[in-house]
Amino acid sequence: MTATPVTVIGLGSMGTALAGAFTRAGHPTTVWNRTAAKAAPLVAVGAAHARSVGDAVAASPLIVTCLTTFDDTRSALGPAAARLRGRALVTLNSGSPAGARETAAWAGGLGARFLAGAVKNVPSAVGAPDTLLYYSGDRSVFEEFETTLRVLGGDTVHLGGDSDLAALYEMAVGAMLLPALTGFFQGAAAVQARGLEVSSMVRFAGKWLDMIKDLLPVYAREIDGGDYTDAASSVNLFLTGAAHDAELTEETNVDTAWLAPLHDLVRRAAEAGHGDHSISALTEVLRKPA
Amino acid sequence: MTATPVTVIGLGSMGTALAGAFTRAGHPTTVWNRTAAKAAPLVAVGAAHARSVGDAVAASPLIVTCLTTFDDTRSALGPAAARLRGRALVTLNSGSPAGARETAAWAGGLGARFLAGAVKNVPSAVGAPDTLLYYSGDRSVFEEFETTLRVLGGDTVHLGGDSDLAALYEMAVGAMLLPALTGFFQGAAAVQARGLEVSSMVRFAGKWLDMIKDLLPVYAREIDGGDYTDAASSVNLFLTGAAHDAELTEETNVDTAWLAPLHDLVRRAAEAGHGDHSISALTEVLRKPA
Repeated sequence: MTATPVTVIGLGSMGTALAGAFTRAGHPTTVWNRTAAKAAPLVAVGAAHARSVGDAVAASPLIVTCLTTFDDTRSALGPAAARLRGRALVTLNSGSPAGARETAAWAGGLGARFLAGAVKNVPSAVGAPDTLLYYSGDRSVFEEFETTLRVLGGDTVHLGGDSDLAALYEMAVGAMLLPALTGFFQGAAAVQARGLEVSSMVRFAGKWLDMIKDLLPVYAREIDGGDYTDAASSVNLFLTGAAHDAELTEETNVDTAWLAPLHDLVRRAAEAGHGDHSISALTEVLRKPA
Repeated sequence: MTATPVTVIGLGSMGTALAGAFTRAGHPTTVWNRTAAKAAPLVAVGAAHARSVGDAVAASPLIVTCLTTFDDTRSALGPAAARLRGRALVTLNSGSPAGARETAAWAGGLGARFLAGAVKNVPSAVGAPDTLLYYSGDRSVFEEFETTLRVLGGDTVHLGGDSDLAALYEMAVGAMLLPALTGFFQGAAAVQARGLEVSSMVRFAGKWLDMIKDLLPVYAREIDGGDYTDAASSVNLFLTGAAHDAELTEETNVDTAWLAPLHDLVRRAAEAGHGDHSISALTEVLRKPA
């Protein structure tokens, strides 16, 4: 069986990793990027460099885009719009569910089949057996090209037929990243202020993340059931912790102002009667009144 | 060899777990709590219930306290102060480095040896081989009682002779918890707003935390070296993501206001010339000018 030809459009660090994985797996791979120089390293390992985005689209039945947003995607593909008919367009970018729906409608209007996905990892993890990518939208596209898409990561999932589901999960799951990292950076600054190496806290922070991971199914059950009464860690416990921030600022000269709205959420949860409830009751406070 | 007698003061859910672990391991265990009823389940499994905090302290060479703060600890031990002479006091509570130093001075003034520690896990994990507890302060206390302390968790570490180091690491490592959880709860609310089960995102969120864990040593190296130029995920990339919050609010009716100061930090990092640098450069922005 001949490997499916695939086109990758958008050669940032993630797009380059995607195209590299297809090329190494033996797929005839065509690449295109607005700044053509980005294609050179891929051409060196066997990818074909299309002269125009139209040629790039015409080269393969499967078009994978890796641009920054859905707007960027539609804008980059604009000159190739007429050539999308009958092809499968798979977007791998961040963006809102609304952006995914708009792009699905746009692609549908051009006669293309559409799948919106997300790579849930860093570029260097592309191609690894455990790397997660999820997709949503036209299931026939997923089924037809699943083997090819699986080249990008062994944990490849179709979430459902609605084109915006991957974007929804992307936002939902991704919401932990910046807050968690900023917590780590704050801790790093605190440890450094004491003249210690940040590396000395990595093992401890890693175990802390393992613990948080173990708590997620518990919290998910509480939220799904709407029952927060069996609290391993209560809202009030976190309220006590909030008082230490000023001390941390004082002690380590680290700016903890970004934590104030978080503590405000905890306080509002307590005021709403969730003091003795699980910290997962914060979910109720995060919901805006309809 | 007879197991070392140990006293546990403060029988919240964590203190109860600690005393239970000592009792099960065959240590003669004396417990005390301001609300005496909390002692009953431990007495049922073989612990002795002291009639006063003074009797509790007098019962063992090793006193483990598990109260909410360092202030609470000194206040609870107040009536027993004269009986602390010659004993080892080990505190397992959250609190600031300054609180640990004050408590060390207070204990020293009473002729007690002092170790301040932290349990880096939930009560149900107490006693497990992988459970992390770290201590700092008088190394001779750690060495003399290490076998006993290891009953509480197999990953038991002495961080150094300064009594406030455990509190410093506790704050530094702990800083990820509330932000990461709030991110998860926000995602949970978003998924629920779509009529989906929160449980459906747990596996994805868990893998996301694994990825974050894998990134920590990289970020630690960047921060320790002060070199942010080799950016796998740049500040500018996070700046792009910030724009999606308003869309998430719109789409899912979830309150994302708590993220505004985080995006402000990202913006300030970009303005400070870190746009193309690693997101770990946020550490520089979190440091207050001296």
